[in-house]
Amino acid sequence: MTPEEKLASLGYSVTPLILDAGLLLHATRSGNLVYTSGQVSVRDDLAIKGKVGADLNLEQAREAARFCTLNCLRAIKSLVGSLDRVARIVKILGMVNVAAGFDQTPAVIDAGSELLIDIFGEAGKHARSAVGMTVPFNFAVEIEMIAEIHRTAEQEFQMLPQ
Amino acid sequence: MTPEEKLASLGYSVTPLILDAGLLLHATRSGNLVYTSGQVSVRDDLAIKGKVGADLNLEQAREAARFCTLNCLRAIKSLVGSLDRVARIVKILGMVNVAAGFDQTPAVIDAGSELLIDIFGEAGKHARSAVGMTVPFNFAVEIEMIAEIHRTAEQEFQMLPQ
Amino acid sequence: MTPEEKLASLGYSVTPLILDAGLLLHATRSGNLVYTSGQVSVRDDLAIKGKVGADLNLEQAREAARFCTLNCLRAIKSLVGSLDRVARIVKILGMVNVAAGFDQTPAVIDAGSELLIDIFGEAGKHARSAVGMTVPFNFAVEIEMIAEIHRTAEQEFQMLPQ
Repeated sequence: MTPEEKLASLGYSVTPLILDAGLLLHATRSGNLVYTSGQVSVRDDLAIKGKVGADLNLEQAREAARFCTLNCLRAIKSLVGSLDRVARIVKILGMVNVAAGFDQTPAVIDAGSELLIDIFGEAGKHARSAVGMTVPFNFAVEIEMIAEIHRTAEQEFQMLPQ
Repeated sequence: MTPEEKLASLGYSVTPLILDAGLLLHATRSGNLVYTSGQVSVRDDLAIKGKVGADLNLEQAREAARFCTLNCLRAIKSLVGSLDRVARIVKILGMVNVAAGFDQTPAVIDAGSELLIDIFGEAGKHARSAVGMTVPFNFAVEIEMIAEIHRTAEQEFQMLPQ
Repeated sequence: MTPEEKLASLGYSVTPLILDAGLLLHATRSGNLVYTSGQVSVRDDLAIKGKVGADLNLEQAREAARFCTLNCLRAIKSLVGSLDRVARIVKILGMVNVAAGFDQTPAVIDAGSELLIDIFGEAGKHARSAVGMTVPFNFAVEIEMIAEIHRTAEQEFQMLPQ
């Protein structure tokens, strides 16, 4: 199965978004790397907010990490057209909105990493940091991602001397 | 107007700095990407310090974000010679020195994003995360930036098989 | 001396690790950049844990930063075979597990930067941010690194039109 087929088989849909958010872009590209903006834990009408370890437990925070991961993929898809063009997930930075004393941040971000591997297989395995800080607007989790994109045939052609 | 002309028209000057800060460099380059070090909120003799949401209000923090952004541009200019060589701003990480309970961090970093768009136009729009943490030496804001640089004619030549 | 020889002369050994940590990789590569995962302050059986500025003093935190740096190098070596293939250290993000009120985070991460310069010379000088947040499992410091790798002769060949 392609990543798009795998995503559908998991019951997720990743609909395009408008990349231009006014003062920033949800994703940018340089060469064959795509950088997403930090994506927060909201999906459709459901925002997962609160301090992890106080307002939210680990399982709620893990669902938040899945939301962020799907939003990163949504940004990438909107930029390059299809998740089937992702060559690999290179790096993610997982930022957890921690209450004082909560430091199991990797256990939170693991849920996002699992989802990436479910979708992309070995190409979904990435370098990662998963740390605690203050996330905007009290969202539970924010994740930013760097993905490598397959070059198109046109790009390969442009790299040849003309 | 070029970015350099635009910057001047806004009343800002970005003078070169010494890139080598002893144990680190204010900016490094790999391929056509420039990575700045985290730049803090100081300009000339004015340092903007304090916890945002307690010691500093939003407008003071926004000015701090402008200082950081200008310092990132200063580092880039010092490395590549002119801001006119910037092809685009790829990604910024905005780090706000937040007091407990302050999570309007995007509103702070927006001031830096606005400045980048004022200077570079569409090429100034970037991917971004804007989060809260502890910034060194109680500076109000720290920003790090990745910018893509136009290749020089010499570099284009070197990419051809000889 | 090569970086590997320099490292040995400093009394450090950097043994390979298993890159695949289950849900993530200790390092990934895209083009000639290697991205490490955030590496925490543990070496052999010694974990340096605690809040810097409360549980740990500056010198203990600086040793923690050295541990993290060595673990980043270990990840890079495991991916590319030898530290002699490092063309330069491009960027590091130093994350210090700060107690409230401790903001001398650059002084902590300086110890890692010094070590990089000791090993790689000018090529070890990097762009850097050094900030405070919550590090997983109460480790004192976490560092992630981007390094540029020399292309192999085979890769140079593959870049030529066939």
